[in-house]
This record gives sequence, C-alpha cells and structure tokens, in this order.
Amino acid sequence: MEMKPLFLITNDDGYQSAGLHHLVRVAEELGDVVVMAPDRNASGLSSSITTGRPLRVRAVGGDGQQLFACDGTPADCVKMGLEHFCPRRPDLVLSGINYGSNASINVIYSGTIGAVLEACLDGFASIGFSVLSHSAETDFEACEPTIRHILRQVLSRPLPAGAGLNVNIPRLPAGEIKGIKVCRQAKASWVDSLERRTDPLGRPYWWMTGKFVCDDPREDTDEYALRQGYASVVPIRPDFTDLSALETMQYLEL
Amino acid sequence: MEMKPLFLITNDDGYQSAGLHHLVRVAEELGDVVVMAPDRNASGLSSSITTGRPLRVRAVGGDGQQLFACDGTPADCVKMGLEHFCPRRPDLVLSGINYGSNASINVIYSGTIGAVLEACLDGFASIGFSVLSHSAETDFEACEPTIRHILRQVLSRPLPAGAGLNVNIPRLPAGEIKGIKVCRQAKASWVDSLERRTDPLGRPYWWMTGKFVCDDPREDTDEYALRQGYASVVPIRPDFTDLSALETMQYLEL
Repeated sequence: MEMKPLFLITNDDGYQSAGLHHLVRVAEELGDVVVMAPDRNASGLSSSITTGRPLRVRAVGGDGQQLFACDGTPADCVKMGLEHFCPRRPDLVLSGINYGSNASINVIYSGTIGAVLEACLDGFASIGFSVLSHSAETDFEACEPTIRHILRQVLSRPLPAGAGLNVNIPRLPAGEIKGIKVCRQAKASWVDSLERRTDPLGRPYWWMTGKFVCDDPREDTDEYALRQGYASVVPIRPDFTDLSALETMQYLEL
Repeated sequence: MEMKPLFLITNDDGYQSAGLHHLVRVAEELGDVVVMAPDRNASGLSSSITTGRPLRVRAVGGDGQQLFACDGTPADCVKMGLEHFCPRRPDLVLSGINYGSNASINVIYSGTIGAVLEACLDGFASIGFSVLSHSAETDFEACEPTIRHILRQVLSRPLPAGAGLNVNIPRLPAGEIKGIKVCRQAKASWVDSLERRTDPLGRPYWWMTGKFVCDDPREDTDEYALRQGYASVVPIRPDFTDLSALETMQYLEL
C-alpha cells in the first residue's frame, strides 16, 4: 500500500488560528497531517529557539487528529514535530497561513518563515504561506486555490531537500488573484519603528510600530507581483552569505 | 573639527557581559561609543522583535559613558539605539563579542547576528563578533587584535551601507591565531535537538540540546577557516532569496 504524503504543519499565530486550520484543510485533501503549533501567538519570533527552560507539548486535537500545542517558538515546534511527533518522515513542512505579509524584508522577523528555515536546515522541503491581511474577517478561502496549486505541483515534482518557499497571497477575492509569480525578495525598510510615550509617572516607554517603505524599482520582486494582484513565491535558503561580496571583502584578510 | 567615528554597540549576552566590554574597549580606541544592549541574556533570539508590550530603557553607565540596557531583543536594541539614543548617525553598528560560535548555520538562531541584520536593513554597515568559547574564563584579549584590524580596515575603507559581516574568532591564544579569512557560510545541521525527560509527576518535557554536524567538504567556508586556526569573516545580507532557484521554480507559476 502506498503511503499518503505526510505534512508537518506549524505557524506563528498559534494553534487556534483560523489561518492554520485552512492550511490543514487543504493539506488533508492531499495527505496526512501532523500539526505542532505554538500554544499562543508567537509572531515576530524569527528563527529564535528556546534554550533557557524546557518545552512542554499538549495534545489539543479531537477525533484522532494529530494536533499538538507547544509552548516554544515556531522553530522549536518544527524540531519537536520532526523529532518526536511525526510517525514517518514528512514530505513537506508547512507554515501558516499567516495573518499579514511576510513579503520583502518582513521575512527577517517572521516566525512563520523561521519555521520554514528550520525545516530547511533539518533537510526538509518547506513552504510558508501568508496572506496580506491582519483582519479577523480575513477570507482564507480565497487563499486555498493558490495553496492547492502549489502543493499539487510540489507533490508531483518534489522540491529538493532543504529548499524553502515563501508564499504571499494578496488580499483579494479568489477570482481576482491573477496567478502566481516566482520572485526575489524586494528591498525595503521600516522607518520610525519605535514610538516614544510617557507613562503616568513621567517615565518613557516605546512601542514597536513603523512605516513600511519599499522603493525597490525592480519588477521581479515579491512586492511588485503582489501589487499587480499575483501571489508571490520566493525561493529561500538558510544561508546569509552575500556571495557578491566575497571578492570585494578580500581586503579584510590577514 | 573632524568628528570621531561613532559606534553603536549591542550584543545578545546582555549589557553586563565581559565580551561586550572588550568590544567597547577596542572601539573606544578608535571613536565614540553608544551601547544599547539587552538587560539580560538574550541568546538564541535571532531577528525577533518585541510587539506585544512596550520597551523600557535604563541608563547603566557611569562617568558619562553612553551605556544603556533595554528589556527588548538585540534587534530591538539596534532600532532603539539608532532612533533614540545615538547623538549622530553611527559609522558602524557592532554586536558582540558573543560567547560561542556564530559560524555556519548558528547564524540563523543568533541574536548577535539578528542585531547585525537589523542594522543592515536600517541602512548601516554592521559587524558581529563571536569567539568559539562558552567558558567564563574566555580570553577575550586574544580576540582584540583581530577586532582592531577589522575595525581599522573598515574605517579606512568603509563598508557599503547595508553590508554585514559575521566574524568568528577561534579559541586560541592571540599569538596562535593564524590570520583572517573571508569565507562563505558552511552547511551543517544540528541533530537530536530535543532531549525528552520525565518530570516527578510522570509528564514529559524536552530540553534543547543537540550535536552540531558539519560535513561540508568545501575549503572556502567559515568552519574550515576556523578549524585551520583563522578568524573567519562571512559577508552577510538580510536577503533570503535563493537566486539559484529562481529559474528552477518557474514550474510553480500560474
């Protein structure tokens, strides 16, 4: 008997997130699913791991569902799922669907993508899905055709071990998403990130905020594709080397 | 009057770390220094940022020293230092000296490097320094000639805005460090990352642990240089795009 594909799924919004359950639903059409997700919102945790305290896991699924909540980071969840909760080697590690863009430089802070990079380091192919909406009314169903297409494609023609994809989906009704574009990460920055306020005792404190500014003029970026109404797919890898600088930095050698 | 170079310095081991103070000492030979460092150990936090609560800052320096402790992550500290505590635009953002290697894939989890990538995104040149020792007896003085050389080089021939360097220094007496090599990030993995134990009530918990395995045969990597007794310098950038995969992933388009 041929085994069904196995998906390990996590996210950074926590195991109760509607986005996670839409991703699970699409994956269950195509194979078996194990979910190991943070037990709370774990957004903005990037690739962080938990070293100062031990981790706990709770079974939170009914009906034989393999659904677990872990008190660690998204990257912790991937390690935990792969090492201790998957009944066999998963075919793909999925993360999302995240509330809010992980396009351009948002990838750096993203726990959704931290999970993807962790899976890549562990030798698995992995895909993170995000939708450009923070609204509680987010139309995750509109994301499903894009996700279904990508999962079918990579099941029929598997990604290399260690390959990652960062998929972002515009906030549009399903019929208005124009298609899927493979892109590079756009250059951008966050400005005025920390807003200073004063508490009732006169002491300052700061809130993370900021304005996203993308002046990247290139037309092969994720930001460009999303603005045109396409879903963007950026191939990513857990290697920060700036290959273009290997030669120019030779003057530092001794 | 010509302004001295200004360094913004942070780390992930916290403002009281001996490694930080050795880096400050070398930087003070060459310019002015503002330190904005986590108020506690913040290792393993990668590029994470704090969004769920406000941040606080305490002045912790004496003698007019510009030394501040922040209750956020290393990346938070960089944003805070740049936006609210530097008297002018810094010439370089430095991070470290970290206790323990940030070579190879350790870069992914590193708060030291999270700070560097944050500074790169903010348009600054930035350098992270780490030494391959976790010992309380770490000989940070042995790191100083390497750091001094690199800082002098980049002050005389500035790095491009947004350029990052990940510098790792072998655990050797100063006279035995053979030199400095510019390298790429080695491929490696951590295996058996989570050790399962059982608490007195019979419930399982897991500790992050693991074995670092580097089988990368290439001789132009940071791991190779370090094993040969050189300090390694990897040029890094906050762009995760796998350029080599842009073409092979075209089959996902729609």
